[in-house]
Amino acid sequence: MDVPEVVVLRLPLYVRALTQLQREGAEVVSSHQLGGRLQMTPAQIRKDLSYFGRFGKQGRGYNIEFLLDELRDILGLTREWRACLIGVGRLGRAIINYTGFAPEGFSIVAAFDSSQRHIGTTVGDLTVRPMEDLSHAISDQRVTIGIVAVPAVQAQSVIDTLVENGIHGILNYAPVAPHVPMGIVMRNIDPVISLQSMTFYLKDA
Amino acid sequence: MDVPEVVVLRLPLYVRALTQLQREGAEVVSSHQLGGRLQMTPAQIRKDLSYFGRFGKQGRGYNIEFLLDELRDILGLTREWRACLIGVGRLGRAIINYTGFAPEGFSIVAAFDSSQRHIGTTVGDLTVRPMEDLSHAISDQRVTIGIVAVPAVQAQSVIDTLVENGIHGILNYAPVAPHVPMGIVMRNIDPVISLQSMTFYLKDA
Repeated sequence: MDVPEVVVLRLPLYVRALTQLQREGAEVVSSHQLGGRLQMTPAQIRKDLSYFGRFGKQGRGYNIEFLLDELRDILGLTREWRACLIGVGRLGRAIINYTGFAPEGFSIVAAFDSSQRHIGTTVGDLTVRPMEDLSHAISDQRVTIGIVAVPAVQAQSVIDTLVENGIHGILNYAPVAPHVPMGIVMRNIDPVISLQSMTFYLKDA
Repeated sequence: MDVPEVVVLRLPLYVRALTQLQREGAEVVSSHQLGGRLQMTPAQIRKDLSYFGRFGKQGRGYNIEFLLDELRDILGLTREWRACLIGVGRLGRAIINYTGFAPEGFSIVAAFDSSQRHIGTTVGDLTVRPMEDLSHAISDQRVTIGIVAVPAVQAQSVIDTLVENGIHGILNYAPVAPHVPMGIVMRNIDPVISLQSMTFYLKDA
């Protein structure tokens, strides 16, 4: 089944909206209601979900619990994901201390830095380790995701090292667009790029 | 001219890649080379740029300086953009101290919090102000962008307040999908959503 990436990118937003609806006590939601939450058309929502089977009955809406279970399963959110973080400067420390990851099943289990200034210090529950420990830690601690919070100039080489050590998923906070080989999934968190795509719409406001 | 949003979202990536090429001393770039940097096809790049006119000569590639100037102009990056930040917890402080905004023309000129614990403290060069000052500060300091770094439960009401006070651009770090009226541009920075759209591809790896 070949699902367009834009659809995959939207699925987590469905999960979040459905979770919120469930918290509010709802059991069933129509594509209209869900579309209202997500600023999408009902047709778009029905089309996205149709890639994965039939979830709703015509005129009766979606069973929220069932749809949530299915989407979590499709996205692989029913298991724990273990990540390592590279770079414990101000940004890296904010990431380690971010409380939003754990409730969603993502745990940062190891932190690394190349600077003697940081190695051996404690950030959150983690002791910062030297880059030489990376390879061992990835296999030993069953790490599958690498979070990159190093300066721009170091990002490509850090990402190369992660990929060489078997990491398939990269969450990159460095303000560059690194190259990754086929089969490696990378997401960039980049507030400047986000701002620059807003100003297009603001410049004549 | 009606440019698809996906194209607008890519333009900042072009700006970054072209800036990098310029730094490396290049003066001309082909759509092939640019595509290689951005992991896009040359055809996609030519199509994206065609929305804005003719930038390249067949077989001669793009003049980097000219294309950069044009793209910066199209995106509104030739002026300074003034932002205010709401919420000076750990995340908000990391945002204020982030050194990536200023070189790109984005300055955070005011910081706000609702907690007495934070009001009056100094973060970076800014003194944290109470929410009651927001309205005045936005007009007085010509703020056009609001950066939201408050907890999830407060995000919608903070964003409503920003919009009521004339803000048209919102950079939202709170892990929710707030509603904004038509004509308001919002970008969400959400690492959990990014991770959740990666695991789809990682779960069978």
